[in-house]
Amino acid sequence: MALLKLGMVGGGQGAFIGGVHRMASRLDGCFELVAGAFASDPARAHASAEILGVSADRSYADYREMATAEAARPDGIDAVSIVTPNHLHGPIAEAFLAQDINVICDKPMTATLAQARSLMLAAEASKGHFFLTHNYTGYPMIRQAQQMVSEGALGNIRIVEANYLQDWLSEAPAPDNKQAAWRTDPAQSGGGAIGDIGTHAYNLACFVTGLRTTRLNATLQAHVAGRTVDDDARVTLQFDGGARGHIWASQVAVGNENNLTLAIYGTKGSIKWAQENPNILLFTKLGDAPQMITRGGVAAHPSAAAVTRIPAGHPEGYLEAFATLYREAAEVIAANSEPTRKSAVIGIKQGLDGMRFVDACQRSSDDGGAWIAL
Amino acid sequence: MALLKLGMVGGGQGAFIGGVHRMASRLDGCFELVAGAFASDPARAHASAEILGVSADRSYADYREMATAEAARPDGIDAVSIVTPNHLHGPIAEAFLAQDINVICDKPMTATLAQARSLMLAAEASKGHFFLTHNYTGYPMIRQAQQMVSEGALGNIRIVEANYLQDWLSEAPAPDNKQAAWRTDPAQSGGGAIGDIGTHAYNLACFVTGLRTTRLNATLQAHVAGRTVDDDARVTLQFDGGARGHIWASQVAVGNENNLTLAIYGTKGSIKWAQENPNILLFTKLGDAPQMITRGGVAAHPSAAAVTRIPAGHPEGYLEAFATLYREAAEVIAANSEPTRKSAVIGIKQGLDGMRFVDACQRSSDDGGAWIAL
Amino acid sequence: MALLKLGMVGGGQGAFIGGVHRMASRLDGCFELVAGAFASDPARAHASAEILGVSADRSYADYREMATAEAARPDGIDAVSIVTPNHLHGPIAEAFLAQDINVICDKPMTATLAQARSLMLAAEASKGHFFLTHNYTGYPMIRQAQQMVSEGALGNIRIVEANYLQDWLSEAPAPDNKQAAWRTDPAQSGGGAIGDIGTHAYNLACFVTGLRTTRLNATLQAHVAGRTVDDDARVTLQFDGGARGHIWASQVAVGNENNLTLAIYGTKGSIKWAQENPNILLFTKLGDAPQMITRGGVAAHPSAAAVTRIPAGHPEGYLEAFATLYREAAEVIAANSEPTRKSAVIGIKQGLDGMRFVDACQRSSDDGGAWIAL
Amino acid sequence: MALLKLGMVGGGQGAFIGGVHRMASRLDGCFELVAGAFASDPARAHASAEILGVSADRSYADYREMATAEAARPDGIDAVSIVTPNHLHGPIAEAFLAQDINVICDKPMTATLAQARSLMLAAEASKGHFFLTHNYTGYPMIRQAQQMVSEGALGNIRIVEANYLQDWLSEAPAPDNKQAAWRTDPAQSGGGAIGDIGTHAYNLACFVTGLRTTRLNATLQAHVAGRTVDDDARVTLQFDGGARGHIWASQVAVGNENNLTLAIYGTKGSIKWAQENPNILLFTKLGDAPQMITRGGVAAHPSAAAVTRIPAGHPEGYLEAFATLYREAAEVIAANSEPTRKSAVIGIKQGLDGMRFVDACQRSSDDGGAWIAL
Repeated sequence: MALLKLGMVGGGQGAFIGGVHRMASRLDGCFELVAGAFASDPARAHASAEILGVSADRSYADYREMATAEAARPDGIDAVSIVTPNHLHGPIAEAFLAQDINVICDKPMTATLAQARSLMLAAEASKGHFFLTHNYTGYPMIRQAQQMVSEGALGNIRIVEANYLQDWLSEAPAPDNKQAAWRTDPAQSGGGAIGDIGTHAYNLACFVTGLRTTRLNATLQAHVAGRTVDDDARVTLQFDGGARGHIWASQVAVGNENNLTLAIYGTKGSIKWAQENPNILLFTKLGDAPQMITRGGVAAHPSAAAVTRIPAGHPEGYLEAFATLYREAAEVIAANSEPTRKSAVIGIKQGLDGMRFVDACQRSSDDGGAWIAL
Repeated sequence: MALLKLGMVGGGQGAFIGGVHRMASRLDGCFELVAGAFASDPARAHASAEILGVSADRSYADYREMATAEAARPDGIDAVSIVTPNHLHGPIAEAFLAQDINVICDKPMTATLAQARSLMLAAEASKGHFFLTHNYTGYPMIRQAQQMVSEGALGNIRIVEANYLQDWLSEAPAPDNKQAAWRTDPAQSGGGAIGDIGTHAYNLACFVTGLRTTRLNATLQAHVAGRTVDDDARVTLQFDGGARGHIWASQVAVGNENNLTLAIYGTKGSIKWAQENPNILLFTKLGDAPQMITRGGVAAHPSAAAVTRIPAGHPEGYLEAFATLYREAAEVIAANSEPTRKSAVIGIKQGLDGMRFVDACQRSSDDGGAWIAL
Repeated sequence: MALLKLGMVGGGQGAFIGGVHRMASRLDGCFELVAGAFASDPARAHASAEILGVSADRSYADYREMATAEAARPDGIDAVSIVTPNHLHGPIAEAFLAQDINVICDKPMTATLAQARSLMLAAEASKGHFFLTHNYTGYPMIRQAQQMVSEGALGNIRIVEANYLQDWLSEAPAPDNKQAAWRTDPAQSGGGAIGDIGTHAYNLACFVTGLRTTRLNATLQAHVAGRTVDDDARVTLQFDGGARGHIWASQVAVGNENNLTLAIYGTKGSIKWAQENPNILLFTKLGDAPQMITRGGVAAHPSAAAVTRIPAGHPEGYLEAFATLYREAAEVIAANSEPTRKSAVIGIKQGLDGMRFVDACQRSSDDGGAWIAL
Repeated sequence: MALLKLGMVGGGQGAFIGGVHRMASRLDGCFELVAGAFASDPARAHASAEILGVSADRSYADYREMATAEAARPDGIDAVSIVTPNHLHGPIAEAFLAQDINVICDKPMTATLAQARSLMLAAEASKGHFFLTHNYTGYPMIRQAQQMVSEGALGNIRIVEANYLQDWLSEAPAPDNKQAAWRTDPAQSGGGAIGDIGTHAYNLACFVTGLRTTRLNATLQAHVAGRTVDDDARVTLQFDGGARGHIWASQVAVGNENNLTLAIYGTKGSIKWAQENPNILLFTKLGDAPQMITRGGVAAHPSAAAVTRIPAGHPEGYLEAFATLYREAAEVIAANSEPTRKSAVIGIKQGLDGMRFVDACQRSSDDGGAWIAL
């Protein structure tokens, strides 16, 4: 597979997720970073470009300029990664899609549902693909779980539990904590725990089960004085077909780092998975002893093997799961002699679903936990 | 401490919980079993008595007769254990309390709230004590947790999670499964998962935190076709002071045996505990690394040490926790030269609270998950 | 089963293991404690008797007197529990066996191999049974492991690992630590870690595998300055048939409480077990995913079920395992209309094996780790 | 940091470790692969080159030709990765060192001690650096452990346990298993478990503790019929200063994938670490409750933070640890305006130590487990 040329918007010095995207894009040798608008401040943008080995003529201070210039170059970028605060995802993605440039965008897709709808129209009008990095779907044991559910190993699904617990916002953050600042500013984030991590939990539950949500209710709370976004969210999901789902996303659960867990209970079996030790999937067939299925191990299914790089017992982690999304995006992009709109692994549809989910949760919570149809 | 004389109602051959009470009563040498009405069928009752070493003249087929006869004996029983299906708890307890005989009763206290209220009046009128065996409160690490919360180690409580997951009712039980038969018959049990295990989770949450519930909402479901009681219950609790609690009790969660867990999150710290490996309490002080506090270990508090029998690393289990309730009941009983009404560790008040909880959950669920004041 | 009458030598106030034996003897209702020589000091002996509910006329200050007096009584004890320091086990056991009284003795059987040989002769000459409380053999999952090995689930055994790690002697103990005092005095204990816990690990390895040791080598060390017994022992075992075993017993392994583990590797499968969470047995069949077999669970074998009291997910612990040995002793005793010598579950043979093991380890270590035939 | 140009010898289609080195070299953006002799068969070599994006003019079928040609190019490689079977490491490394090209070599350093000595001389004569990829030293929690030991958090070290258990060679491998074929051929590997994984365990123990081995004894066994290298190795180490170490490396321990564990016990504390869940370090300070130190968490030390890429709770794995060695090699290489011999993180010294270890183990085992001075 030819090395694809990647641009990036956001991700300058001091950012967190930009570095993750860069490592993920490099791991499997599918992309090389050649252009970027790493910050809105020109000096910081160019300083970052130099550090990242991006040549000065492809370092931009404005993403609109970047989209136009790169589209005009014969050696222009094949895709752009968007790693800014949430409220900028939509406008930036639209600018690149307008130039038929493929977009790889961090989650949640936008800050508001209106932005998400606008972006969907832009994506439909573009020859560029849109990829959303719900990175936890890249874990091999999640692919295994998805395959097991779809093959009926659990029978009919009754209950889905997806919890994502953190504690880094248990107190008011220090004033210089840039990550915390924009994530707790509703104008930039669009929401608190529900948007930042609740969307991950929701996406994971849907990805693995394939179930469609028909309605939900939610309670969003802010436990820290003065906080204007939620830091703890509880959601009940009603799925088509009768199963119930529950999501708990919290950023004030002391003693939890990135404790994302998924448990699915069906009529014939169950699976349990925990992101902090992701190479194990606990499977219980009703009436049998629980089994520990390991990534790369004897009981791994083809879907897991397809995204496994190294043998069992050598842990793959977060970056490998993230890199799988980049590799799969590269495969989609490379398969088109010229970019054409096409359903990607996780894309516009899931992004819009996620924003509908956030919007419905906020409306339900504002209405005292009322059921909201989706 | 003098050996106390114990009677038992229920717990004949084929029963489960009767044997547990007998082992628990024996472990610390506080009680000897001398009388019983082990079954309503006389032949089964007397056969059980013989096996259990109870002399024929103190084997009864009717609990009313037993209460009267034992009260009349100079060597009559000091206490009676009630280990029947739930709907009989109330009438039996009242019969013994009417004779001023101390009662040790399995949970939930009754099958209905009306029975619970009646029993409370009976207890208030009696010189006998009433003890309710919410046995999980006997675990040393639960006592430790209670002490840590009360001493402020967690700061102000924000979130309380108490889940009790089983899978033994994932399918319709075999016709000869006596345990399953009465527990899934609303006339005998008064409720399904919510009464059988939800009350344990609720009691545990309240016991450890000391918080008072002001209102709740609940969703009770039956996942197995034809089942007339709930087998899965979700409850949200609003506590006085602002904390929120969540209870999930399920009997259809495949892969879980008696997976009762408690997690409490406060402004300054958290604790996590799991009944299936109960000798460890995970404590995280905000800003410090998580600590594993062990029963009998260097970080155990006096409250835990007081109910610890053997050194750290030698696991104590379910029966020891249960026995602690028997020992504490014996201490209360022995402290009275003649029986007088007195507040016991877990007694009428908690039993009534538990039945109010069940009743409110059922009403909330019937009303589509509406909030119910407590 | 009729309640058997139990006597006890040792186990007065301040002792640890005496209380364990008493709780274990009571749990299943097989024994009642009616006589004792709880201490060599008369005042302490009688004070203990009173606390323990033993009548004054059956409280003795001398075990020889107790053996004679109890043998002479028509209601004399059925068995005596010996819970003294090791060097007294032999003389006391011989005194009771000489009266044809059954003996239940704490481990190791004696302090020296010579004492063990003498005791064996005494046992052969007696109508009394001799039971040795290698209590870890009472765990249901150990019985399960034994059955699985004997049924060939692991194939031919290649490697046996039995480690017993503690840390309570990591430093020189406080002068008033009575437990530590006699256990680190070679005259009373006969050895340090090798005798106190190494014999447990060795007995467990042999119990589960049924393998016979042909030779061993050992290195015993004392890590704490001034200590005159070993506090860390490493032993390599050569078994008949080619398997190798390894034992590590340490009392200076900081961070370990009673971390006894057993792992057995065969040509077709393996098992792993840990005493601190004893209700799980991890089984891997070569070529399959590891399985978690639980006490009382769906994959438990009859041998485990036979010693299981309560349902899966309700942990049984150390006292239950200990109580199983008492119950099995009671069954053996009760099965004889008059006491006759008979092979008990764990008895003289295993006790002698254990002392041969200790003796061989000490000789090997003294000889620089040379191989010693057994 | 400028992107360094990397060549590779070995690692063509069907190989395992070559792909690992390539991913590790890419992750942090320090190296780009520009040349290679990926196989000794020209057709396979060139096919691999094409797949890997290496231009035809820098695809070689002979490593000697590659060393000469690359040294002659103005844009020649900055370093070569050697990922062949063990017996070729020495000759290939010498060929590149002779051209003053930096070498990054997979472990063990060579197949024989004689080769290792020869290579050391070659390295001393070269301006090129030599890096040995004992990749487990790259885990952040291993760096943490090293720092804690060196700062005295454990006091004086008493006991070091390093076990590396696998099961993939529990039976005779399939004939077409290329990995198994050369690893079980003594001519290619130089040894079995002792060389392949025992050297990792030994290196890790030395890396973390900084202790020097004065003597050792070993028992190497082959459990599978017909196998001509060891598949199970036991080693006892005597360290300078009195500490003892124990290594168990096995490839027939059913139920273990890459179960490398390290435990270190000192006078004041202990650490425990397990490679399969590498983001946690369990630390017990004598007299305190055990603590779970996490990568990126509040208790992580600077040494761990320096090699941490992403926040706590997002697991880093094997490839990240491996990539850390590549990054550190890049830093050493980049710091020299022209290559000069310099001590690298893990280099010739550790490689020679490892081969001395293997050689001593083999001699000890051949001599019945005799002590061998190092």
